[in-house]
Amino acid sequence: MLRVGILGGGQLARLLCLAAHSIGFSSAVYAAEEFCPAKNVSQYYQGEFNDNARLNEFLANVDVVTIENENFSADFLGIIEAKNKLLPKSNSFIVFQDRLTEKKLFNQLNIPTNQFYPVDSYTTLQDAANQLGYPFVLKQRKLGYDGRGQYVIRGEKDITNFKDKQELFFIAEEWINYDREVSIVAARNTLGEISYYDICENRHENGILKKTQVRKADPMFPVATELVKKAMMHLNYVGVMTIEFFQVNQQLLANEVAPRVHNSGHWTMHGALTSQFENHIRAITGLALGSTDTVANVSMYNCIGGMPELGEVMKLPGAYNCDYLKTPRANRKLGHITLVDNDSTRFKNSEANLTELIKAAEVVDL
Amino acid sequence: MLRVGILGGGQLARLLCLAAHSIGFSSAVYAAEEFCPAKNVSQYYQGEFNDNARLNEFLANVDVVTIENENFSADFLGIIEAKNKLLPKSNSFIVFQDRLTEKKLFNQLNIPTNQFYPVDSYTTLQDAANQLGYPFVLKQRKLGYDGRGQYVIRGEKDITNFKDKQELFFIAEEWINYDREVSIVAARNTLGEISYYDICENRHENGILKKTQVRKADPMFPVATELVKKAMMHLNYVGVMTIEFFQVNQQLLANEVAPRVHNSGHWTMHGALTSQFENHIRAITGLALGSTDTVANVSMYNCIGGMPELGEVMKLPGAYNCDYLKTPRANRKLGHITLVDNDSTRFKNSEANLTELIKAAEVVDL
Repeated sequence: MLRVGILGGGQLARLLCLAAHSIGFSSAVYAAEEFCPAKNVSQYYQGEFNDNARLNEFLANVDVVTIENENFSADFLGIIEAKNKLLPKSNSFIVFQDRLTEKKLFNQLNIPTNQFYPVDSYTTLQDAANQLGYPFVLKQRKLGYDGRGQYVIRGEKDITNFKDKQELFFIAEEWINYDREVSIVAARNTLGEISYYDICENRHENGILKKTQVRKADPMFPVATELVKKAMMHLNYVGVMTIEFFQVNQQLLANEVAPRVHNSGHWTMHGALTSQFENHIRAITGLALGSTDTVANVSMYNCIGGMPELGEVMKLPGAYNCDYLKTPRANRKLGHITLVDNDSTRFKNSEANLTELIKAAEVVDL
Repeated sequence: MLRVGILGGGQLARLLCLAAHSIGFSSAVYAAEEFCPAKNVSQYYQGEFNDNARLNEFLANVDVVTIENENFSADFLGIIEAKNKLLPKSNSFIVFQDRLTEKKLFNQLNIPTNQFYPVDSYTTLQDAANQLGYPFVLKQRKLGYDGRGQYVIRGEKDITNFKDKQELFFIAEEWINYDREVSIVAARNTLGEISYYDICENRHENGILKKTQVRKADPMFPVATELVKKAMMHLNYVGVMTIEFFQVNQQLLANEVAPRVHNSGHWTMHGALTSQFENHIRAITGLALGSTDTVANVSMYNCIGGMPELGEVMKLPGAYNCDYLKTPRANRKLGHITLVDNDSTRFKNSEANLTELIKAAEVVDL
């Protein structure tokens, strides 16, 4: 029996555990929290990330380790990697946890992206503004998610807010009037095989993903697969990787990479023959990948701050609920609901009804 | 958060837990064993089935209780039922745990079955032999599974083996030269909605299920669904129910009923839009049922006594592994493998290759 270890205990860890158990592996989760979504579905090692004794106990009891969150320090990742059990390798986390090194890699690999400038002082912020014009976007280089640590700079006045800040650790990015946002979710295993899921069209509100719509045979699929393949090959990457793009006319501009399973791939739990979670587990355990075929019309909705009434949701044809069992809090992703239906008319009806139910339960605090 | 309790900790409990967690429910398992397949994927209450204090502790911590095994005593089921949390209700377990009351129910409901006679003495055994002729089948009324407690009686000599037995608690059944064995898996929820999966064709060897092949649009589907509906309606049944039939010409003869998720429905984990495990959980928690549509060509193979090499299995296109993490033992079901593929030629190839791999690993002791 192979033992899969996961660093971090949120919903991604929870869903990875379920996939590991379905194949017939055991799972163990290492996380700092007393309660977290993965706790009661796995062996659970509660420990701080600087508690080496506890960490070594965890590492001794697993055969392979993966992460649900790329924001661990290089030092910490080095400790894990020294045991030769970490997949994907730490190089991917280190490059993608910093928006500047991520963008530089895009340039190096000729993966199209928007213009950007590092900002580490008020002067460099002014320089960036001169280069980019207004509006532009200022993003924390590390640890931002769901729109946190991102600022739209609409004019000189917004810049002066940063005049007295002690340390600036930002990247300034060109503002893109995109036609749509899409993502590609792909998996690469230890044998070098790569599989791609259908492209998804994503809708964000206030920086938080609200809806993912699967687009079968999307015209941008060949471009997107080439770009994610380039990144995977360069890093000798193993596992699931997602790239989010802005599409402008027929061009895809890479926005960011998730070196892990990703929210825009949650639809695969019920909408693809093999879920992104199972394919990630297969990839890191040396197994062949499962089919990524989409089974019907599919879309996925995030539930933010509140879950809609379960009984009402499940009455919608094709609805699958996934509650992460997190304490409700404004702006927090508490779960997602996937719609899967071959009947296109019924599917559209369910989409309209589900949107209403989710909106009524949503708690967003701007 | 709804808390699902399961009595018994084997593979059915394990897979029910995974389905409950996927929706966003918690699960708790009550079982006597120190180790069992469900242990590390759920909250686990180890306790004997006559330990009322421990049982009450478990019952206080769950909202609904279901079973993975119908062979609990009526007294025990009564204790659980008194808490108003048991689904399906105990009436179904009680009638189907005894092959005689099961067969009598078939007669009562005009569900066709083979001829049968109760056997509780050597005299009644001789009477049954006179009525049925040779060969016929003698089955323990209770607790038989995977062919255990079943005897083919080929002539008078076989009868005399039972002459000196103290107590006989059997049913004698007509020998059927069937054309094929099929099963229907259906779910009925608390609202009375019923959904049916496609018919499966089952192949047993030595009384143990070896292979289940899904038959889309099978000509016997309308007959099978009417029969399982009749049983469910009569019992006001809630949950997944399976009926196994012998088919002779165009007639289905009910062989036995499983008032629970069933091995011949395991293919639904990857081969149907909604698994039998999720639909059982939905049914007992008052939710609408999910689509039972089959997604492609599907067949399922049991692994008996030994699991084939995982890496080789997963290389087969469309293969999904499910290891129950049980201690290997001859004749024991250790896991199952499902093949799901839209490409019929590739599917047939995988079937042939998988059959070889499974056979090489199998340990059967007759």
